[in-house]
Amino acid sequence: METDVLIVGGGVLGFSSAYHMKRRRPDDRIVLIDRLGGPGQGNSAKSEGAYRNVFTSKTNYLLADSTIDAFNHLEHDLGYDLKLSHIGYLWLFSEEQHRRLRPVLESMAGLGVELRFFDEELTSMIPGLVTEFTGEEAEILGLEPVDVAMQGVKCGSIDADSLVRCYERMFIEAGGEVVYGAEAEKLILEPEEELGIPGEPFVWQDAAVKGAETSKGEIRAATTVVATGVWAGRLLDPIGVDAMMRPKKRHIFVFKDPRLRGLFEVKGLNESGAMPLTVLPKSGVYLKAEVSEGSIWVGCADNLGRRFGLEDDSQPEESYYTDHIYHLLVEYLPCFKDVRPVNMWAGQYAINGFDGIPVVAPAPGMIYVGAASGSGIMKSDALGRIAASLYVGEEETELYGGRPFRVADLGVRSRRVEREEFII
Amino acid sequence: METDVLIVGGGVLGFSSAYHMKRRRPDDRIVLIDRLGGPGQGNSAKSEGAYRNVFTSKTNYLLADSTIDAFNHLEHDLGYDLKLSHIGYLWLFSEEQHRRLRPVLESMAGLGVELRFFDEELTSMIPGLVTEFTGEEAEILGLEPVDVAMQGVKCGSIDADSLVRCYERMFIEAGGEVVYGAEAEKLILEPEEELGIPGEPFVWQDAAVKGAETSKGEIRAATTVVATGVWAGRLLDPIGVDAMMRPKKRHIFVFKDPRLRGLFEVKGLNESGAMPLTVLPKSGVYLKAEVSEGSIWVGCADNLGRRFGLEDDSQPEESYYTDHIYHLLVEYLPCFKDVRPVNMWAGQYAINGFDGIPVVAPAPGMIYVGAASGSGIMKSDALGRIAASLYVGEEETELYGGRPFRVADLGVRSRRVEREEFII
Repeated sequence: METDVLIVGGGVLGFSSAYHMKRRRPDDRIVLIDRLGGPGQGNSAKSEGAYRNVFTSKTNYLLADSTIDAFNHLEHDLGYDLKLSHIGYLWLFSEEQHRRLRPVLESMAGLGVELRFFDEELTSMIPGLVTEFTGEEAEILGLEPVDVAMQGVKCGSIDADSLVRCYERMFIEAGGEVVYGAEAEKLILEPEEELGIPGEPFVWQDAAVKGAETSKGEIRAATTVVATGVWAGRLLDPIGVDAMMRPKKRHIFVFKDPRLRGLFEVKGLNESGAMPLTVLPKSGVYLKAEVSEGSIWVGCADNLGRRFGLEDDSQPEESYYTDHIYHLLVEYLPCFKDVRPVNMWAGQYAINGFDGIPVVAPAPGMIYVGAASGSGIMKSDALGRIAASLYVGEEETELYGGRPFRVADLGVRSRRVEREEFII
Repeated sequence: METDVLIVGGGVLGFSSAYHMKRRRPDDRIVLIDRLGGPGQGNSAKSEGAYRNVFTSKTNYLLADSTIDAFNHLEHDLGYDLKLSHIGYLWLFSEEQHRRLRPVLESMAGLGVELRFFDEELTSMIPGLVTEFTGEEAEILGLEPVDVAMQGVKCGSIDADSLVRCYERMFIEAGGEVVYGAEAEKLILEPEEELGIPGEPFVWQDAAVKGAETSKGEIRAATTVVATGVWAGRLLDPIGVDAMMRPKKRHIFVFKDPRLRGLFEVKGLNESGAMPLTVLPKSGVYLKAEVSEGSIWVGCADNLGRRFGLEDDSQPEESYYTDHIYHLLVEYLPCFKDVRPVNMWAGQYAINGFDGIPVVAPAPGMIYVGAASGSGIMKSDALGRIAASLYVGEEETELYGGRPFRVADLGVRSRRVEREEFII
């Protein structure tokens, strides 16, 4: 097969890039392949499905804030049901954390991030929330009183699967082609000018990616987009391009239990009364109310001690909930006592350990979109637009809503981003 | 075994760190282990053994320039034979390259890098050098005339093996302990306060590295230094710390042939008349005269097309010389015609694809020194001092010669470096 563009990877970044490239170049043939049987089945649809514009890095703020606007456009103007739920984010801080974070919070306010703060009223807003701790268990866990809560207003929940399917639909409706069950086995790297000598490309030849060998045959393309998330190294390592990320496993545990109904009766934080995506002060444990299915999702952004390493099909471990999360969670929200998850899954983040910000970078004949560090969903529209700008040769992208973004800022050679200080 | 410091890795960065830590804390017990039987046997002693202060990044300049001063001190004041040879570096540029690089060269001059430029006189200085090309072969190779040569003056050649042994000796003389044949199999990650419950550390515990399990038993340490070069991921991945580098193979081919004697009769570039470490205008091919053994070393800094991937014992391929390097080299220096290498080897670089600058970063209970991107030898003294500053808790290091360096600049959290623009 020959095509103008081959996009490898049918996750959210592959489809967003595919759609925006097709939108910009409707006459070009653009083919997206994925090794699995449908959209988003790698890690995209396993996402927590939360979005926020609360970042310290201006880059991250622009990427996410404009993508959130795009989500609203897709759902409200174009009629795609993304199960958007504007529940907000809520961070609970101890006094010490709050003091330490003050400069960070000020810099976010300076970017235009809408934040609200609560203190004493918190326990009356969230039924059953404990903010003062006594007893041996709390001491062992090292719990500090919750002093303040910070709400990110332009934040909420989205159904990741619906989002990927929305981009897939728009891409196909614009004339894009999708081939499922086609695995890219290796990128084709060839000299720009072939001599027909075995062993090409030699170091003295200008080489470029010219497509991929796939499980359904060779696909030759003028431009190849690698958007395979945590699997990017499988394609990029052999040609010596750095994928700029390490894969790390993350869990989601789902709860549906009458004892948790208080988490749908929250006051003063959002219209639906649902528990925002709430980050506990300790250990990166978070939860959100998934309004569309009346469930609570719990996860944990662990760091030191959680190995880096690629898994082909990450499996959840219930012991991760019982041993690591439960004891902590039940101190803050005793309603979780003895409630067991009804569902759980695990996926992988592609973590950029350097600056925590995604990469959209050209290499000869190709564009790499990845290293999204667990925020690919919430930056998907912006990243797809930036990839499309690289494709059409623009130095500046217009993000949804019209704000400009310098394309090279997310690249490697002239990368210009601020390291994100507010990572969950 | 229990020790204050366990250093894993007996390459140049491990021994330089060990020596400087011992120098700063003579009463602390510091033990260095390496899986191999002697110093530098991983990749250090396989290095090209060249040093330069020619960098665009102020960080790199400071690290290398001060380390070069330290080399001179070690050899001339302390009497270690490092086989220093002040032959300089020489870059050959086409007119187009020179024009494109002008801003880069100016910024280097601004840092204080001593540079000299040559044009027409070049062919009379280097016997047999070809700077104008005709013929089909040159056209296929895409050769441009050599327009200008830039010499880095404070640059030269060092015997990497001797340097590692020098640091080893100084470390042992200061009372440091070395155990060869001891492989660190995994880092010990434990909670700061153990509860004695199976499964620790839990996410709600503050965990730290407390030493390593090795092939010669457990070694517990208050501080563990990971300085295992390209193998760092083996220890760091399992505990979720990013090694910030990808391993990439590089070759060295050694030539000793009367036909190459002209490369020891160079005029006007250095006192010994030896060919500087010379970088050809194309494809990253370089060579140097190794004065101590009367040989010429040839290598190639290939990039796209040269895979990333860890090898335990990199083996050289002669075909890499014949297929990739020879045709190009013989155009510039026809004296190489039909000369075959008498020796060759391969090693691996630990390439930091983000900014090309080494990492010296703390994590709980440990210090990571690595990602040296092929310039670990020439920055070894500075990196060891910075690791030692982290150990003793200083915010600022005094580099050899007295220049200050902010320790956190080479870390990850508050990294502050300029991406290097002048990579070979």
